Amino acid sequence: MPNLDLVVREIADEMRQRRDRGEVATYIPELACIDAQAFGLAVIGVDGRVAAAGDSDTAFSIQSISKVFTLTLALGKIGDRLWRRVGREPSGSPFNSIVQLERERGVPRNPFINAGAIAVTDVILSGHQPREALGEILRFMQFVADDPSITIDEAVAASEQRTGFRNIALANYMKSFDALDNPVDFTLGVYFHHCAISMSCRQLAMAGRFLAHLGRNPTTGHSVVQPERARRINAVMLTCGHYDGSGEFAYRVGLPGKSGVGGGGILAISPGKASIAVWSPGLDANGNSHLGRVALEALSKRMGWSIFGA
Amino acid sequence: MPNLDLVVREIADEMRQRRDRGEVATYIPELACIDAQAFGLAVIGVDGRVAAAGDSDTAFSIQSISKVFTLTLALGKIGDRLWRRVGREPSGSPFNSIVQLERERGVPRNPFINAGAIAVTDVILSGHQPREALGEILRFMQFVADDPSITIDEAVAASEQRTGFRNIALANYMKSFDALDNPVDFTLGVYFHHCAISMSCRQLAMAGRFLAHLGRNPTTGHSVVQPERARRINAVMLTCGHYDGSGEFAYRVGLPGKSGVGGGGILAISPGKASIAVWSPGLDANGNSHLGRVALEALSKRMGWSIFGA
Amino acid sequence: MPNLDLVVREIADEMRQRRDRGEVATYIPELACIDAQAFGLAVIGVDGRVAAAGDSDTAFSIQSISKVFTLTLALGKIGDRLWRRVGREPSGSPFNSIVQLERERGVPRNPFINAGAIAVTDVILSGHQPREALGEILRFMQFVADDPSITIDEAVAASEQRTGFRNIALANYMKSFDALDNPVDFTLGVYFHHCAISMSCRQLAMAGRFLAHLGRNPTTGHSVVQPERARRINAVMLTCGHYDGSGEFAYRVGLPGKSGVGGGGILAISPGKASIAVWSPGLDANGNSHLGRVALEALSKRMGWSIFGA
Amino acid sequence: MPNLDLVVREIADEMRQRRDRGEVATYIPELACIDAQAFGLAVIGVDGRVAAAGDSDTAFSIQSISKVFTLTLALGKIGDRLWRRVGREPSGSPFNSIVQLERERGVPRNPFINAGAIAVTDVILSGHQPREALGEILRFMQFVADDPSITIDEAVAASEQRTGFRNIALANYMKSFDALDNPVDFTLGVYFHHCAISMSCRQLAMAGRFLAHLGRNPTTGHSVVQPERARRINAVMLTCGHYDGSGEFAYRVGLPGKSGVGGGGILAISPGKASIAVWSPGLDANGNSHLGRVALEALSKRMGWSIFGA
Repeated sequence: MPNLDLVVREIADEMRQRRDRGEVATYIPELACIDAQAFGLAVIGVDGRVAAAGDSDTAFSIQSISKVFTLTLALGKIGDRLWRRVGREPSGSPFNSIVQLERERGVPRNPFINAGAIAVTDVILSGHQPREALGEILRFMQFVADDPSITIDEAVAASEQRTGFRNIALANYMKSFDALDNPVDFTLGVYFHHCAISMSCRQLAMAGRFLAHLGRNPTTGHSVVQPERARRINAVMLTCGHYDGSGEFAYRVGLPGKSGVGGGGILAISPGKASIAVWSPGLDANGNSHLGRVALEALSKRMGWSIFGA
Repeated sequence: MPNLDLVVREIADEMRQRRDRGEVATYIPELACIDAQAFGLAVIGVDGRVAAAGDSDTAFSIQSISKVFTLTLALGKIGDRLWRRVGREPSGSPFNSIVQLERERGVPRNPFINAGAIAVTDVILSGHQPREALGEILRFMQFVADDPSITIDEAVAASEQRTGFRNIALANYMKSFDALDNPVDFTLGVYFHHCAISMSCRQLAMAGRFLAHLGRNPTTGHSVVQPERARRINAVMLTCGHYDGSGEFAYRVGLPGKSGVGGGGILAISPGKASIAVWSPGLDANGNSHLGRVALEALSKRMGWSIFGA
Repeated sequence: MPNLDLVVREIADEMRQRRDRGEVATYIPELACIDAQAFGLAVIGVDGRVAAAGDSDTAFSIQSISKVFTLTLALGKIGDRLWRRVGREPSGSPFNSIVQLERERGVPRNPFINAGAIAVTDVILSGHQPREALGEILRFMQFVADDPSITIDEAVAASEQRTGFRNIALANYMKSFDALDNPVDFTLGVYFHHCAISMSCRQLAMAGRFLAHLGRNPTTGHSVVQPERARRINAVMLTCGHYDGSGEFAYRVGLPGKSGVGGGGILAISPGKASIAVWSPGLDANGNSHLGRVALEALSKRMGWSIFGA
Repeated sequence: MPNLDLVVREIADEMRQRRDRGEVATYIPELACIDAQAFGLAVIGVDGRVAAAGDSDTAFSIQSISKVFTLTLALGKIGDRLWRRVGREPSGSPFNSIVQLERERGVPRNPFINAGAIAVTDVILSGHQPREALGEILRFMQFVADDPSITIDEAVAASEQRTGFRNIALANYMKSFDALDNPVDFTLGVYFHHCAISMSCRQLAMAGRFLAHLGRNPTTGHSVVQPERARRINAVMLTCGHYDGSGEFAYRVGLPGKSGVGGGGILAISPGKASIAVWSPGLDANGNSHLGRVALEALSKRMGWSIFGA
């Protein structure tokens, strides 16, 4: 078994020297000024040991990675009834595609495309004020990460609210099919804010531990979800976690993962072994962190962690 | 660790008693007369041990499962250049959809939808006569299964050739984009014939062993493919192996698998542990074996084989 | 030549007795309470003579018919540059389809589908406050109809603004492609209000005279548009005026026309002969006035007005 | 009223001097060697007078223009039941699109896109041998043109049969929905052959006279179709006659017309006035004759023939 600390440091060194860094997202002005050279990696074993390197304590906008945690929370609230509101099949089209919604009358294909995450947010919101729902999401994130210092970057949230025309279109389109229960502005407000949660690689890897460890916090032993639910969330991450690049990620990395477009973070899970967070703001053509994916491919290969065969 | 033999027999018993058996495919007249009550299951561990129950020695038409083996063969011929001819992303639409081909100008999304498998067959055929290419595919299947008795059901092949209008449409459509090198009739002839290979669960599980065992035949130790390629084929099976039901299969079963619509067979791989074949001719709405999927879900759960967490 | 007065009265009588009246639109609550039995017809010859019958002086919401006049106004403002913002091909899909917008990156196919009319409204709005732009549209309508009493039904406009989720989605979607110059709320506000203009058949037929008479008001002789532009607006009405029922309308009625979904009105033009307005609130499956279309078919046939052959 | 002879000669002169001639189609090798400089124009008034200029007696492949005559013939055979097999709405997508067929389960949108013309051919073929059906189509063409010398260019037909992969795909796709009654090869054989009918502008304008003259041969007075049917065929030509360029043709030319892609011919009808045929082999981006359209626009304008207003 290779030494994890060593492997993590090697990879961080290699990434620092690469010239191909992808393009920093410009669609959220607040994110456009991020240092394209940044790279962070944190791995937390199910035994609780941490291996981290690079900018692993710098906070970034987790963006779509929040969808893993809102999915977990919504499943906790209404269980498998959630699957009446959203499917769990790969989307086969760009992440913001509205075409599929028309064909399927407002039911998004999975909880990790934007439309699906908006539907999930709508479930969490139901019966609450936006402020309460958002508080619940943030507290859940703090709880699974064992870290009450996690916050929301209000400037990022405000920026998305001003310029997120495509998400506004998606939500109104779903509303036209009666596929949202709450006022569009309420649901979108909560959605834009939970995407603007700010975390470091270390915090994010902490938050993902329950998915690597049968649904439980490996340190305290507290159960977050049942083992079967943890497995199933991992399955959805594997098949749907990277929009139209999910097949590619499974092929190259071989781990369940969820990318967070704008901020360049990726959360990956090695079931039974480790929770992994990587961050590098340069993106590939599909909107996923370029070096993040390269680093995860190297990590999975050197540690023999692919779920498709040791 | 539960006793595999016992689990396999239990599952076969349970399946025999279930009333919900799906619908037998009628689109190939030769397959429509199959006994809907049939059920077979065979599991071959990487240690070579076999657990089988039910009609595990009855031959059936493997249909689309052959696509796993033609993919392996084509990768052996031209390596990663294959991915210029076919993608590896889930399709997000019914298995015979022609829409996506129009948008992507004749390049199918993955090698497991019909269009993709036709492109893969075209690669195997190149430079050969149809008879030779088909012989090569059959010999490869006999080789990986260690069984020279495997044959093609000519009546099934002839039936598909007569009535497979949608596949004929797909192939001509790809040809109109110059996406096939060989005459359409040649490529389709080989395609229809390799889908008509006839095997039992036991033979099929034997044939899949190299995917469970780092690309090698676990008994002889002979290498079929490099370990990385075996992992990657497993990854494509997981994300794309069940047409528009791939997300559902990953969610419920948690193993790479490939269903073979018409005949009701499914091949599944537990990486590092076992190769599994199940057969039951009743199909669900997505065209996959209903009891086959139910049995695999039970097997994966009882043996703790999900790749998404023990 | 048949007697127009007589024909108009005959048709109104026949329509009053028919049982098949279509369904009154319910998507705008303010429109849902309209009397399904209402029927009005007004025909104004290029010689200025008026033939009217039924409820031809009852005001109704002209809805999408306003798109003919906003198209005329926008062409007057920026001429053929308008066609960079919107196409002039039939849409081949339901009137509110968003799919086509994705394929064509925010450029609607024609000015008579909702997305296209929103783009046209955005052109009229540019450089103005919403109130000014709306005033300009209303004044133009009053001018072509020679009738300063025409107004906007604020309750209908407010209702659409509250519930027009699909139009809000369309506008935000276009904005995400940078295909709107003004704030989405401004453009939509003007759009919802001009669709809520309230007119009677007589007023509407008056407003359409310039399209029947070489672009000129036949009474005063004042030019509204050049003759070629009048012909071209008629051509767009013929090919695109009835959403996905445009081919059917051309086939049966044989006149350029524009239906106004919610309110059940239709404006039709017999070039060189007459401007025609009909109103009946029951709609067919495509959202067009059922009896309105039937009445126009009868009128065109009896008067020998089809543009496709006397 | 301008002098028709003079106008026709002027236009032919102007076209001869233009440099922008479009691109000659290469998809049928037999057509690729045609002289790009060729230009012919023939106009036959309902009074029987002929005005012709340029290469108006040179035969060319009428290609899709044959669809007007097969539509007429099929309507004569089964009347309005034809509309169960094919719609009459503009297609809103490129002429060979297969997407729409999937959505509408094998029923083409109109008889002038390839799929629709294949369905119409299938109707004419029913109960006959391909040779008989083809003979019937050819005799009908000779009858309406008063010219028994019209023939089929076998080399063109054979070429399309060898290379028409997209049409083969369309026909097989429709067959997979049970939307064709006859063997695919039979229907396609007749289709490829009637598209290969070879005619001059003069012959084609003769053949179109019944559409300009209430369904009757203006010289003999013989009825070909009822007046209403002639009007309706004109309506379908106007809305659907130029694939995805139908709106443009209506906007610019203002006459019902049908273009014949490969050969560069266009048939246009001025209802009550004249039948017009123009030929120039260079095509625009939509596959329609570039100079043909320009010449028709000039002719319609100078003669004041637009159906949308004198």
